[in-house]
Amino acid sequence: MTESRTEIAEHFKKIQSSIIHQLELADGKGKFICDLWEREQGGGGNTCIMQHGAVIEKGGVNFSAVFGQLPANIRQALQVSTDGFYATGVSIVIHPLNPHVPIIHMNIRYFELDSGEYWFGGGIDLTPHYIIPEQARDFHFSLREVCNHHHPDFYPRFKKWADDYFFIRHRGETRGIGGIFFDRLSHLNTELSKEQILDFVLDVGNTFAPVYCRLIEQNAGKSFSDNEKRWQYLRRGRYVEFNLVYDKGTKFGLDTGGRIESILMSLPAQANWEYDMVPEPGSREEFTLKNLIKEKDWLA
Amino acid sequence: MTESRTEIAEHFKKIQSSIIHQLELADGKGKFICDLWEREQGGGGNTCIMQHGAVIEKGGVNFSAVFGQLPANIRQALQVSTDGFYATGVSIVIHPLNPHVPIIHMNIRYFELDSGEYWFGGGIDLTPHYIIPEQARDFHFSLREVCNHHHPDFYPRFKKWADDYFFIRHRGETRGIGGIFFDRLSHLNTELSKEQILDFVLDVGNTFAPVYCRLIEQNAGKSFSDNEKRWQYLRRGRYVEFNLVYDKGTKFGLDTGGRIESILMSLPAQANWEYDMVPEPGSREEFTLKNLIKEKDWLA
Repeated sequence: MTESRTEIAEHFKKIQSSIIHQLELADGKGKFICDLWEREQGGGGNTCIMQHGAVIEKGGVNFSAVFGQLPANIRQALQVSTDGFYATGVSIVIHPLNPHVPIIHMNIRYFELDSGEYWFGGGIDLTPHYIIPEQARDFHFSLREVCNHHHPDFYPRFKKWADDYFFIRHRGETRGIGGIFFDRLSHLNTELSKEQILDFVLDVGNTFAPVYCRLIEQNAGKSFSDNEKRWQYLRRGRYVEFNLVYDKGTKFGLDTGGRIESILMSLPAQANWEYDMVPEPGSREEFTLKNLIKEKDWLA
Repeated sequence: MTESRTEIAEHFKKIQSSIIHQLELADGKGKFICDLWEREQGGGGNTCIMQHGAVIEKGGVNFSAVFGQLPANIRQALQVSTDGFYATGVSIVIHPLNPHVPIIHMNIRYFELDSGEYWFGGGIDLTPHYIIPEQARDFHFSLREVCNHHHPDFYPRFKKWADDYFFIRHRGETRGIGGIFFDRLSHLNTELSKEQILDFVLDVGNTFAPVYCRLIEQNAGKSFSDNEKRWQYLRRGRYVEFNLVYDKGTKFGLDTGGRIESILMSLPAQANWEYDMVPEPGSREEFTLKNLIKEKDWLA
């Protein structure tokens, strides 16, 4: 029995609450403050933000369920013929205070057209300020586990998709160590039923908190220097570049008149730019930069 | 006698040197460090950056003269039929340390196609962290003077163009108090000869330094609080949003494989984002925000 869009949205809401709960426990001090908002053209959301936590400097865990008519340019970009749409999803970006804790992003979404066409999308990707190969392996291992539970092709296919998507073209570097990314999944292109794809997407959503809380546990207690903090601010500058120049979700939101403060919650509290900064040879900063490349097998 | 592209580039180079000299005098401490670079596909430039000056926290005064073949997407965007091009220009963005000194941007450029088609573009616009109406009036007055010297229509036409161009659509606010902006000027659309347009463009270039040095003189000695600095970082965040999401020069540079560190010199040393920050009623921050609107007559 295929679930309705309202039921899918309810599942997403539950995932949002559960993640907020787990992140607050992991932070130990910060609380999420939530803004319920409505969209003039239909629907609304619940934007939950933590600022100045012990671990999370700035982070958002957003839910939204919006509907209405697609603007002509978006309809064309999506190559769809009807314009009545419904979209629901959970979006997360966490910028930690400690440069040894990675930035993380997670998104799960469901999109439906009046014609009956639907698809799921989403992903999880990690942006360590300092790459630690063992932790990168653990991260990709967890994602592969989730994927393998649903289809043997998913991990290799969605890992490559993440490499291609989370790429800062003008820098020739990936945003971080990737993860998984997928879009427009339906029974037409997955050998799975709609219900089975929903199960996969919910599993991705439920994987986020344990994976990230473990990374917090492993790294948030480490001390850091001014130089490491400086590097973090520069890496966040790259994150800003990706999100404002390339990210399709951000573009979609800005173009469709979404709630700006919810869309741009992905931006860090502070980001820096220095002219032509090149890390010292042999440094951990250089190691990180050298490994921000596509098609690296983090499980090797 | 119409000047050749090489002669135009020489004029632009002289303007770059003159501006660097005047800005170093006004700063009193900081020096510009220049990188000569070459572009694989043809031409090159001279990127001059000051960081950690007494007045200028981070600023760039760039010259470039590049040539080659236009990529198909750019050719289409420009709606031109030939693809051999030559482009030269001077580009400036200055981010001051003191929040009472405004951010400024200036650009003059010349573009030529193998077909013989050519145009000039450019502009100056000001982004005060705190708007001071008298200084805004002075600024626009100076720009009107330069424009009136060449054509009575130029100031109203180019002032409106700046309002429309320097607009952060997703925020519904202008980047700053505008100024002048113009593009694709030639004898075909100005009642001026090519040489006369060049004169105008050089005048715009030569107006930049005295106008900005006066603003430095008026404001750089003012003391500032942590709260004013915090506001400056947030305003810079908006500047980053404009440059990465809307600025055509930035997009052109990123799309044509320009030198990234030269293109992104426009980004500040530090920018901040806070969730849903609303200035206090009656504050100078609120006054500034309320005046970041199109079609305001700053000369009134």
